[in-house]
Amino acid sequence: MSAPNTTVPDDAVLSALCAVVGPEHVLTAATHDLTAWEQDWRRRHRGRARAVVRPADTAQVAAVVRTCAAHGVPIVPQGGNTGLVLGGVPDASGTEVVLSLQRLQRVRALDRDNLTLTVEAGCVLQAAQQAAADAGLWLPLSLASEGSCTVGGVLATNAGGTQVLRFGNARDLCLGLEVVTADGRICNGLRGLRKDNTGYDLRHLLIGSEGTLGIITAAVLKLAPQPAAQLTAWASVPSLAAAVALLGMAQRHLGPALTGFEVMNRLALQLVQRHFAELPMPLPGDAAPYAVLLELSDAEGEDHARARLEAVLAHALQQGCALDAVVATNLTQARTLWHIRECIPLAQAQEGLNVKHDISLPVSRIPAFCAEAEAALQRRVPGARLVNFGHLGDGNLHFNVQCPPGADAAAFLQAHEATINTLVYDLVHAHGGSISAEHGIGRLKAATLPRYQDPVALALMRAIKQALDPQHLLNPGRVLVDR
Amino acid sequence: MSAPNTTVPDDAVLSALCAVVGPEHVLTAATHDLTAWEQDWRRRHRGRARAVVRPADTAQVAAVVRTCAAHGVPIVPQGGNTGLVLGGVPDASGTEVVLSLQRLQRVRALDRDNLTLTVEAGCVLQAAQQAAADAGLWLPLSLASEGSCTVGGVLATNAGGTQVLRFGNARDLCLGLEVVTADGRICNGLRGLRKDNTGYDLRHLLIGSEGTLGIITAAVLKLAPQPAAQLTAWASVPSLAAAVALLGMAQRHLGPALTGFEVMNRLALQLVQRHFAELPMPLPGDAAPYAVLLELSDAEGEDHARARLEAVLAHALQQGCALDAVVATNLTQARTLWHIRECIPLAQAQEGLNVKHDISLPVSRIPAFCAEAEAALQRRVPGARLVNFGHLGDGNLHFNVQCPPGADAAAFLQAHEATINTLVYDLVHAHGGSISAEHGIGRLKAATLPRYQDPVALALMRAIKQALDPQHLLNPGRVLVDR
Repeated sequence: MSAPNTTVPDDAVLSALCAVVGPEHVLTAATHDLTAWEQDWRRRHRGRARAVVRPADTAQVAAVVRTCAAHGVPIVPQGGNTGLVLGGVPDASGTEVVLSLQRLQRVRALDRDNLTLTVEAGCVLQAAQQAAADAGLWLPLSLASEGSCTVGGVLATNAGGTQVLRFGNARDLCLGLEVVTADGRICNGLRGLRKDNTGYDLRHLLIGSEGTLGIITAAVLKLAPQPAAQLTAWASVPSLAAAVALLGMAQRHLGPALTGFEVMNRLALQLVQRHFAELPMPLPGDAAPYAVLLELSDAEGEDHARARLEAVLAHALQQGCALDAVVATNLTQARTLWHIRECIPLAQAQEGLNVKHDISLPVSRIPAFCAEAEAALQRRVPGARLVNFGHLGDGNLHFNVQCPPGADAAAFLQAHEATINTLVYDLVHAHGGSISAEHGIGRLKAATLPRYQDPVALALMRAIKQALDPQHLLNPGRVLVDR
Repeated sequence: MSAPNTTVPDDAVLSALCAVVGPEHVLTAATHDLTAWEQDWRRRHRGRARAVVRPADTAQVAAVVRTCAAHGVPIVPQGGNTGLVLGGVPDASGTEVVLSLQRLQRVRALDRDNLTLTVEAGCVLQAAQQAAADAGLWLPLSLASEGSCTVGGVLATNAGGTQVLRFGNARDLCLGLEVVTADGRICNGLRGLRKDNTGYDLRHLLIGSEGTLGIITAAVLKLAPQPAAQLTAWASVPSLAAAVALLGMAQRHLGPALTGFEVMNRLALQLVQRHFAELPMPLPGDAAPYAVLLELSDAEGEDHARARLEAVLAHALQQGCALDAVVATNLTQARTLWHIRECIPLAQAQEGLNVKHDISLPVSRIPAFCAEAEAALQRRVPGARLVNFGHLGDGNLHFNVQCPPGADAAAFLQAHEATINTLVYDLVHAHGGSISAEHGIGRLKAATLPRYQDPVALALMRAIKQALDPQHLLNPGRVLVDR
């Protein structure tokens, strides 16, 4: 009687992969510590890879895919491994090959007159931002993980971040892609065109498909002129409805100069105060229910920017949609304001495990949704604490739930996580929202998606997956559960 | 011996369609003049429809599609019939049913706080613009045919227009779609969300697919606050390279307030002068090689806008990238400047038949491309006159060729159209450009596309078409030639 051999490394595949990329770029657990590729960013899951393969260029990526396809081996494309939904780490089967794009990190071209940057998928976002800045230009895509995440990963997941209000999501900053298909062909769509109606938009189909339809190997990104001045302000507001009113006011007065509009509830700030006591709170006695952070990017200069921002805030104070407000007087102060906002997830982690949501809603529905969700939460899980913050300008909230003070967080999650998720997602759905605003689906939400996604849409997605990856070898089980 | 009966109306289908939409909304040539649906906008082609069917709502659209699918009858979805590439008119076979969306024209919702407008596909673009304006908001999508074209058509073809520089193409203004699939199911994606990463982006796949993958029945469109002031300026420039330099200067100084940047060559303006003699030219003795039109949309007010625009123009004059410049002093003058630009295609038509191109290039390549293309054109077709104008800010040129003065235009086209197309498109391709920037492919360019589109991209498009419309009944032969 022979043991099942599905998890025994197939020498033929590994040998073939070694022939493609060189043996030093085919890593296995037998010879290497694969933690960096097998463990997810939040360190809540650890998979097992058949091997980690590190091709050097697009041709090698294509050859790796052809090799895996020939042997029926599933592939998990991976960038900086900063994803939050288990889209880029292998499952526990030990059968999946991790295809790391990290060696494809060249900046291929920067075109000043066309305002475009062509970079390879493995280029770290911060390096791409720097390449733009070195040319006096601006890549207006910014997220907390920018020091580790890669351009390919950012596009494969259609990442969001803090500048979506003006510049859109990652997809909106991409003009063209180079992609390796499921059968290992190279599709060259690296065009830096702002208008191109020559057939179906494969670029947008691939962006956000989380490596399940093809592997992004390079991209043309849109750049913008650097603003002459950027200013940051902080305001306390009496309610979420007031925050929405302030958003509308700021959009009317500032137009596209408004590049950031974040919101945070009182508990979010209290956690930051508790765990980052050295961070000064911007407004004294900050006991307002919500605070907002505004960012203005001005094409004219600092004086002009300051006058505009102060005018909006004065109007908001007069109208009662702000209780108090302050404009950062220098870059250090501005960075501190952003730092407070960015510390919320870290403060949450310090406080203990919590139930995270990455939801979006029509901006108009946010006050009603939050009121209903908070009330329902208190009914179902008395004492649960809501840490509510996010990119209000985009309708995107991180609506996270922490256990009651002093409770055992792990036991709380064990007992309530599924209930809380269903409660929140059902209400999100009822208000026309999305259960994944910027993080994607991955494996984490793949089984949940069918409950909320339109069934016809799901059927179309399955048909597309079948058409472009008939062997189901590209990141199988991510986005769509395999049937 | 019996005659072939492919063009004989199939009573079973027509009866079934009558049962769905009512007999008064199934029009045939036997009882109606079908010119409005069978003839294309440029009046160069006249097809023949088996019938024109006019459903009243989405459910009827789905039922019409199911009926046609059951009988294997091809469907040509049609909006305002303003397309320029034979994408929305029937072919000559008499077998295709035209499915007109014109009765689906309701404004379903306007959400002020969310800045969204939900409209049905048959709503005329101008009516949608008006619905936004009535609420004090702005639908920043504007094209010459806006009085006739429909929202559905604009999205199905990913139309461009004059405000792409700041707001993007039609696809960039759409947050969600309602779509009828090839098998007559309704896919409800009418969500007004700025962030939504729940699976593949079907919206962007459908937008620009020209009715070949599904039929758009409604859409959620993004709105913007109305600008406080809009100003228009005109400048003569010594060369295309100077125009590109002026564009960069304007983008740096004005940022996103620059909402329009059009370019026109001398001949384009001379034709307007000849055929619209009553239109005053903005600058005296306008003999510069090129002129540009700039539009500034300002969130603060007219004085502020004027000071900014004058500062940019003064700088341009000083740097030599403008020879002369004028800012419109009132709305009438501004409209006249735009009117001159918009009269170019009309003046061309008055001058006689011509060879039209709708191309895009990286902005940085435009001067070199135009120099090479113009020289090659003169070598191959001596005396041919180039009417070159378009949306320079988007890299989109209408690079049109008129016969030598006094020559027979029809004979000229007969002799040279194919040669000129190949010459222009080959050069566009060599410079990394697109043979269809904003008009689409339709039937007109479907046979040309494979020469210039990446072969792997074409294969993926065919796979997607096969997956979503396996019977090939949705607008067959448009975008992709049937094989």
